[in-house]
Amino acid sequence: MLITLTTDFGTADHFVGAMKGVILGIAPRATIVDITHEIEPYDVNQAAFVIAEAWPYFPKRTVHVIVIDPGVGSARRPILAEAGGQFFIAPDNGVLSMIYESAPHKVRAISNAKLMRQSVSRTFHGRDVFAPAAAHLARGVVPAKFGKPIHDYVRSVRLKPERVARDHYAGTILKVDRFGNLITNLHVDHLPDVRTRPIEVRIGGRSIHRFALTFSEAGIGELFVIVGSSGLLEIAANQGSAAKLVGCGAGSAVELQLL
Amino acid sequence: MLITLTTDFGTADHFVGAMKGVILGIAPRATIVDITHEIEPYDVNQAAFVIAEAWPYFPKRTVHVIVIDPGVGSARRPILAEAGGQFFIAPDNGVLSMIYESAPHKVRAISNAKLMRQSVSRTFHGRDVFAPAAAHLARGVVPAKFGKPIHDYVRSVRLKPERVARDHYAGTILKVDRFGNLITNLHVDHLPDVRTRPIEVRIGGRSIHRFALTFSEAGIGELFVIVGSSGLLEIAANQGSAAKLVGCGAGSAVELQLL
Amino acid sequence: MLITLTTDFGTADHFVGAMKGVILGIAPRATIVDITHEIEPYDVNQAAFVIAEAWPYFPKRTVHVIVIDPGVGSARRPILAEAGGQFFIAPDNGVLSMIYESAPHKVRAISNAKLMRQSVSRTFHGRDVFAPAAAHLARGVVPAKFGKPIHDYVRSVRLKPERVARDHYAGTILKVDRFGNLITNLHVDHLPDVRTRPIEVRIGGRSIHRFALTFSEAGIGELFVIVGSSGLLEIAANQGSAAKLVGCGAGSAVELQLL
Repeated sequence: MLITLTTDFGTADHFVGAMKGVILGIAPRATIVDITHEIEPYDVNQAAFVIAEAWPYFPKRTVHVIVIDPGVGSARRPILAEAGGQFFIAPDNGVLSMIYESAPHKVRAISNAKLMRQSVSRTFHGRDVFAPAAAHLARGVVPAKFGKPIHDYVRSVRLKPERVARDHYAGTILKVDRFGNLITNLHVDHLPDVRTRPIEVRIGGRSIHRFALTFSEAGIGELFVIVGSSGLLEIAANQGSAAKLVGCGAGSAVELQLL
Repeated sequence: MLITLTTDFGTADHFVGAMKGVILGIAPRATIVDITHEIEPYDVNQAAFVIAEAWPYFPKRTVHVIVIDPGVGSARRPILAEAGGQFFIAPDNGVLSMIYESAPHKVRAISNAKLMRQSVSRTFHGRDVFAPAAAHLARGVVPAKFGKPIHDYVRSVRLKPERVARDHYAGTILKVDRFGNLITNLHVDHLPDVRTRPIEVRIGGRSIHRFALTFSEAGIGELFVIVGSSGLLEIAANQGSAAKLVGCGAGSAVELQLL
Repeated sequence: MLITLTTDFGTADHFVGAMKGVILGIAPRATIVDITHEIEPYDVNQAAFVIAEAWPYFPKRTVHVIVIDPGVGSARRPILAEAGGQFFIAPDNGVLSMIYESAPHKVRAISNAKLMRQSVSRTFHGRDVFAPAAAHLARGVVPAKFGKPIHDYVRSVRLKPERVARDHYAGTILKVDRFGNLITNLHVDHLPDVRTRPIEVRIGGRSIHRFALTFSEAGIGELFVIVGSSGLLEIAANQGSAAKLVGCGAGSAVELQLL
């Protein structure tokens, strides 16, 4: 009975508390884990990245609730996806795209009003639709009770780097993390030589040649490229903020050349 | 054994952790839910609003602890209130006013030193008085053991809109939420025609005529009025911050006219 | 089965969620408490202070995980310390210094790979080393299974005030808390007369003579000295930020003279 929450609600309002009250009213023995509530408001892509990084570390049958919902109150459907032995409850707006890519999955539209709060507001489906669905699922209600399988769910294509020439890739910064590391969309699995050949990474007018295996092997403040814990290349600075040093952020262009 | 916490302690210090240690030392099986620790320091009104919005979604017998306590160390009493089948532990400074208004209630002064930490500091009653009281209550100690009923507890009158003329109300912004929505003190239950008649809302030199049922029906960035999930009128902008657009915040004046 | 977390990971990324997933995968019945994730990146001293303030309020056998780890990926050892009947899991970088000072303790290097994740990344030992160690310990694996006792662990000497003359001490600000209180390294236990004799505290060009027992006895905005809940002298202002008033922060010099 493990339920995680990923939202753009912040932690200064009553929103997250109300969702937890609803969950624990239905499933008193659930353990609730906050992934984050600090997704920038309405940023579906950022949430897609964060949940994709977190879910592989959770046990089977965990229920992940993701509420980044710019279309609340519109016709967008609430969905329940099964993938990798875990469950995902979210609005159908592409926020699960990276999970669809990484594992076989089955998606249902949640339509059973008996598994929602009795009165569903137009502005807060986190509390009225997604929280009760998660709690009922955690208590053992089978997925088929929630609604019918669908196939036309939204699959935003994940931003992938472009191969502009042999050994030359044009990518993007997906996110800046707490430490100012710039997370690119360049995945080490698609760049088998990156660990062994000399490289040049260009970003924000800077050129970086250093590839490091650990943060501590670089000089303090030195820019370098490292493979993050998820396999994506990151631009980092030992004990400093790479984002500040290069003046770049989410959405910035980055180029990689194998020399 | 559900305990919620609402404080102005922030999450960067040891304060909240120490409270939780005390609770779990007394009631190891308690489930603790953070409503928020981001109330602005000493802002009793903001905390009154947040707990009033959150508590209706929790199950019976939940113990809510609210520690916004500018008078810590003074003679203000710690209190235990019962309302709606739930419990509220707080300093007697009016922070429970909106709960008193919404449900029949009974208030006691907490005076039983056996239900506090053995040594009570002068500066941190959250840890030494409120946390142990909540834990003992969650474990089943009956309210009467905490202290005697009182009737002279602090009831700040909740800010209510003024009716300046027939169909014309002068209100206030209670809070700005994470999304920049301006939450007014105008409640839809007291304004039965607001959904059906043309309206004009004036705030920050702007005049708003649009009443929307969902965020997504307005144009992106357009200002509109919506009934929030708690029944209070909010001024919002679809996928934008209404607070930034009108340049207003908590305490700002707002006027509503039914046309 | 109580596990606390203290990190500099922030709450906007997936880091903390991934750690919790790993813990709950191994120890599904663990209760996890966040002390804070808002330690400033790489600030080992600040983390040392926060965990030292929090741990005394937790019950026996609590497992505290502290991950402030500028040396991740280098040769610094992960350690498991026992003190005061509780457990501490951290990198060996001095972050437990204040605990070593306050209680008899035993320290082991964690070397048993069977108690780590199968694949240990070079950048995220919080998830791959510290979280699984905590979970296994909480489930009852005995400390001896983790690795051998060591004696050459890092003991940073805690910043102590200097006695520059009889009744004259030169100290430092350890931290500014949420309320703008300046926490000094002057401990009341080493200054027995501070409560009874006239004092002068000098900081940021200001001179403070007032010693208060509670916040509320000072005038609003008035600067005063108070003994914090941990016995350290704090410079505070009733319902205001002392840090702003004196223009000082962590690392600033402070002088105390008994008159």
